[in-house]
Amino acid sequence: MIIVLRAHASEEDIRRVEDIIKGIGLAAHISQGVERTIIGAIGDERKLAPDLFEGLPAVEKVLRVLSPYKLVSRDFQKEDTVIDVNGKKIGGPAIVLFAGPCSVEGKDMMLEIGGSVARSGAAFLRGGAFKPRTSPYAFQGLREEGLKYLAETRERTGLPVATELMDPRDIDIVARYADIIQIGARNMQNFRLLMEVGKLGKPVILKRGMSATIQELLMSAEYIASEGNREIILCERGIRTFETATRNTFDISAFPLLKSLTHLPVIADPSHAAGKASLVEPLAAAAIAAGADGLMIEVHNHPDKALSDGPQSLRPEVFEEMIARLQKVAEAVGRTL
Amino acid sequence: MIIVLRAHASEEDIRRVEDIIKGIGLAAHISQGVERTIIGAIGDERKLAPDLFEGLPAVEKVLRVLSPYKLVSRDFQKEDTVIDVNGKKIGGPAIVLFAGPCSVEGKDMMLEIGGSVARSGAAFLRGGAFKPRTSPYAFQGLREEGLKYLAETRERTGLPVATELMDPRDIDIVARYADIIQIGARNMQNFRLLMEVGKLGKPVILKRGMSATIQELLMSAEYIASEGNREIILCERGIRTFETATRNTFDISAFPLLKSLTHLPVIADPSHAAGKASLVEPLAAAAIAAGADGLMIEVHNHPDKALSDGPQSLRPEVFEEMIARLQKVAEAVGRTL
Amino acid sequence: MIIVLRAHASEEDIRRVEDIIKGIGLAAHISQGVERTIIGAIGDERKLAPDLFEGLPAVEKVLRVLSPYKLVSRDFQKEDTVIDVNGKKIGGPAIVLFAGPCSVEGKDMMLEIGGSVARSGAAFLRGGAFKPRTSPYAFQGLREEGLKYLAETRERTGLPVATELMDPRDIDIVARYADIIQIGARNMQNFRLLMEVGKLGKPVILKRGMSATIQELLMSAEYIASEGNREIILCERGIRTFETATRNTFDISAFPLLKSLTHLPVIADPSHAAGKASLVEPLAAAAIAAGADGLMIEVHNHPDKALSDGPQSLRPEVFEEMIARLQKVAEAVGRTL
Amino acid sequence: MIIVLRAHASEEDIRRVEDIIKGIGLAAHISQGVERTIIGAIGDERKLAPDLFEGLPAVEKVLRVLSPYKLVSRDFQKEDTVIDVNGKKIGGPAIVLFAGPCSVEGKDMMLEIGGSVARSGAAFLRGGAFKPRTSPYAFQGLREEGLKYLAETRERTGLPVATELMDPRDIDIVARYADIIQIGARNMQNFRLLMEVGKLGKPVILKRGMSATIQELLMSAEYIASEGNREIILCERGIRTFETATRNTFDISAFPLLKSLTHLPVIADPSHAAGKASLVEPLAAAAIAAGADGLMIEVHNHPDKALSDGPQSLRPEVFEEMIARLQKVAEAVGRTL
Repeated sequence: MIIVLRAHASEEDIRRVEDIIKGIGLAAHISQGVERTIIGAIGDERKLAPDLFEGLPAVEKVLRVLSPYKLVSRDFQKEDTVIDVNGKKIGGPAIVLFAGPCSVEGKDMMLEIGGSVARSGAAFLRGGAFKPRTSPYAFQGLREEGLKYLAETRERTGLPVATELMDPRDIDIVARYADIIQIGARNMQNFRLLMEVGKLGKPVILKRGMSATIQELLMSAEYIASEGNREIILCERGIRTFETATRNTFDISAFPLLKSLTHLPVIADPSHAAGKASLVEPLAAAAIAAGADGLMIEVHNHPDKALSDGPQSLRPEVFEEMIARLQKVAEAVGRTL
Repeated sequence: MIIVLRAHASEEDIRRVEDIIKGIGLAAHISQGVERTIIGAIGDERKLAPDLFEGLPAVEKVLRVLSPYKLVSRDFQKEDTVIDVNGKKIGGPAIVLFAGPCSVEGKDMMLEIGGSVARSGAAFLRGGAFKPRTSPYAFQGLREEGLKYLAETRERTGLPVATELMDPRDIDIVARYADIIQIGARNMQNFRLLMEVGKLGKPVILKRGMSATIQELLMSAEYIASEGNREIILCERGIRTFETATRNTFDISAFPLLKSLTHLPVIADPSHAAGKASLVEPLAAAAIAAGADGLMIEVHNHPDKALSDGPQSLRPEVFEEMIARLQKVAEAVGRTL
Repeated sequence: MIIVLRAHASEEDIRRVEDIIKGIGLAAHISQGVERTIIGAIGDERKLAPDLFEGLPAVEKVLRVLSPYKLVSRDFQKEDTVIDVNGKKIGGPAIVLFAGPCSVEGKDMMLEIGGSVARSGAAFLRGGAFKPRTSPYAFQGLREEGLKYLAETRERTGLPVATELMDPRDIDIVARYADIIQIGARNMQNFRLLMEVGKLGKPVILKRGMSATIQELLMSAEYIASEGNREIILCERGIRTFETATRNTFDISAFPLLKSLTHLPVIADPSHAAGKASLVEPLAAAAIAAGADGLMIEVHNHPDKALSDGPQSLRPEVFEEMIARLQKVAEAVGRTL
Repeated sequence: MIIVLRAHASEEDIRRVEDIIKGIGLAAHISQGVERTIIGAIGDERKLAPDLFEGLPAVEKVLRVLSPYKLVSRDFQKEDTVIDVNGKKIGGPAIVLFAGPCSVEGKDMMLEIGGSVARSGAAFLRGGAFKPRTSPYAFQGLREEGLKYLAETRERTGLPVATELMDPRDIDIVARYADIIQIGARNMQNFRLLMEVGKLGKPVILKRGMSATIQELLMSAEYIASEGNREIILCERGIRTFETATRNTFDISAFPLLKSLTHLPVIADPSHAAGKASLVEPLAAAAIAAGADGLMIEVHNHPDKALSDGPQSLRPEVFEEMIARLQKVAEAVGRTL
């Protein structure tokens, strides 16, 4: 950590910063420049919070040298994390497909959609039984009933199930039915929920919050990892910007950036980013080209009757055709789909 | 709700939109313009989700006429909601002060700070026992022990206590000690938590999420209100923008805007918005001038030893002097502090 | 245009809106809903500014039905605009490559880089002679001398030249040397400059401003088109968001969105979006996958000695290898590079 | 400047950075930490662009110690700059008022509005003769005719005139009529225009761009100052964020922040920030409370007939009443209005 003092900082100011650094067991390295005095803290910077210095009147700024996360960083683990779910690998050379409806709305629709996406090449089934909705008056999900339909669809199709957990009180029931637990964008900084899934023996999909930086996403992954669970799949689903022509702005740079900063797999959710069915294919193709390890796509047999997210859902036949085209893009970048 | 169809929409396309509107019990009103056909849904628009139409290929855009919230709107209740906590009124002509440390760090510090802010004119004590921290390695709060210190400080000072609830599993314990429950910015869309505090018989401070629109803040308040709890205090604490010179961008327009859209009291948290002690007073003065009903200020007896948020905390003597100056601003806009 | 009145608007309020609409030669269509009165303006909405109504106290909101641009819209022209520059086509099935240094720094470097990118498959040469720099103390470009080096490089390589115009006073001199005029992101709303290039008989590259919406980009293109010049190439180069890990956030959705809204070609500038050489290739591949009609890439023979934008410039040999890989992606989406 | 190298940087990597630093005449100071090597450049950092190092593969990040602006900084000049225009002082204890219509629409309206705002206490007249409009089809201003009406209004009222310059080609004509030249938000980074007004002997109002950081605003001021003109008035007018309930987000923190970083006066334009007349007064009051040195307010005698910005313009009588209330706020913070 580097602490820059204001012009004309006194000897006493310098001493005060030095004392804090030494008090935590690190060494202080003082460098008198022409216009400013700079103090470096030598040792494990992660023990120091910038807060400790920013409160001092003589301190102008504090600069981190290292990233605040560790277990999830490439520095800590060079090789890619590959997660095995019932023999299907996430984070390896093959790009994996999660497909299914936004919400589980009934048993028949799940079996129909599940059968269809399995035939088109999906590796995992997605579908929400607990739904975070902006309005208290909107459909909130079928809860345990929905989880049962997901499990039944898994039995018929062989597709492992990924579904969202919103509340720590539901963890046992969700974990009973799901193969992969999803933490939604609105819960990316629900730290108590992160700690709970960190204690679980199941892979977790962690979606990036609408206004979360890349670093905050990695810090939330670190929460899960620090509790013992290293099977974490990051998911880019768009961020909030001034642009209103799309629901969110899909941050395509997140793929190459995250792949350089962390060893964890990174997947894309183009459906939520776009908010429009017509944008799903171009964004999915872009994500593959930029290095995504997987795609999560909303598929619905009757998008215009969907209880949520109809506008961005694809019909099964559209999904199937899209996959055929996306396979070519995957091959062009040396991967399979 | 108004549905704008694409150029050259067919009779069948029009019929399809009409059917959905009528299916929900509303009337459809069709208007053929020169370049577009527009369909209005007449009746209680809140029954309709824009999603229902946005999925149709013939639909170009969908425009809401009414706000999606109801109970918290000025349309629903003209008079200001005034909340009474042990005889202290929030939302009336007097501007109320919440003061205290970011985190409860020990008993002595709480008694010292509590006594001091009580003498300076604070009406409520604030302090976190459960802390949402970006890093899993940072201080997470004293939990129940912290709540006890808050309660002891209340006994000594007479100041009612506001403290944060992060997890629905802690609701009983937090409600046992707190007079006002705070929902933090990161939990503004933790809908299950909102539903729980909606069933409680205690006032709730709802902080605006870092990337939440004014409308989303009101929708989250509607969640609480729809469960029965109408004692909701909204809190502006800064939003996330491209500007990095401040921790967050304090959205000063939120005060007059919210006061026109809702009957609920609206308070300001300039400490979190600014992230710097030197900005707290100008932002607090601005909030008062813009119509805030209260202020929430971080005060710490040793900011440079604070376990969290030291840089933005004021020393008790600085706080006291600031209050004297802010009282003049309050008087200038016809209120008291 | 649709004007929504506040609850309890009077007959007189309705009349006032009606009068404004009729005064401009449009018809007013009044619809009394349960909670609101809505007035539609029937006719060429582009004659009406929302401003005309938003000032009235009885007006709650004003909604546009049509886009405010016309000449550049797909509604106006169904077929793609294909621009021919010395026999090279922009906007057709082949994806075109603009390559060269950020700034023209000297004659030798231009000839070396120009020769190199020509051999690698670039169709156009890029390079700035007039440079918009954030600091007054930074290198501002070689001006006319730089334009001459660009022209000499064109003679040797056969590559037409695209270069930036910053000031209407330089239009004659820039137009004398350049084949394509570039309007930079900071000048996207320099309306007087847009009007000048609108009168020119040369193609224009219009870069999206850092905080410009898709609609504002199209309005700026409309400025150029309304003066008579229809040879406009739009360029996405990243927008400003809260994320600081990249210089800008590359808005990948802009490609499919713009291609649906306008008939103009749309190219990508991944170098400026990313700000890092290592991100250029993944973003370029993503842009191709998402439907871009061209790429603009910064290439420098000595990036670590570049007078501007060194960190995001590719060495010629890296550029050449990248092109070979990008060709596969182009083929995967049915195009050539 | 501090250069942080990647883990495992070689001796040669270190040497390379050192050579660049020494080549520019600064000293290099190398510090080997536990996980990273850090190199400090000692001397006048402003000679170094971070670009020089960011291009090297061994460099992880580059941190500035000093701000990139100098002449406009508080470090360079401790005392506030006070600008005298015909005996009226900007930047002193009195808060100054600029008032008038968005656009000059005719002679009679100017005389009427000018007379009225002069009586209400305005110190300066504002009004646009050259108008930057998003649409090419909107009213573009009366140009020289408008400037003449401004000058005539000055003769009658004694109010000096501030008006916008959009194009370097208009500088002579605008300078002939105006007392203060305004650079609009869209031109904040029109560097050639900044250089021209930098050579002028008249004060300049520099409006913050919609997506400009505080630092970029100061860099643009530095452009003007570096050409010799030190009479610069900064103006906060709202920034672009995700919030759509207001036209722009008024960045109230900019006032105390700018006052600490620069010696230049800082004024507020609440009309453009809000986009709604009802928000002008609360934002103006907030700006005064936060430390603004002046206000720029749009006043129109017939807002519903205004050719631009009607919704945010105040009627003269509303303006007059507002001023009376704002004077109390100014007094509360120890100033006059």
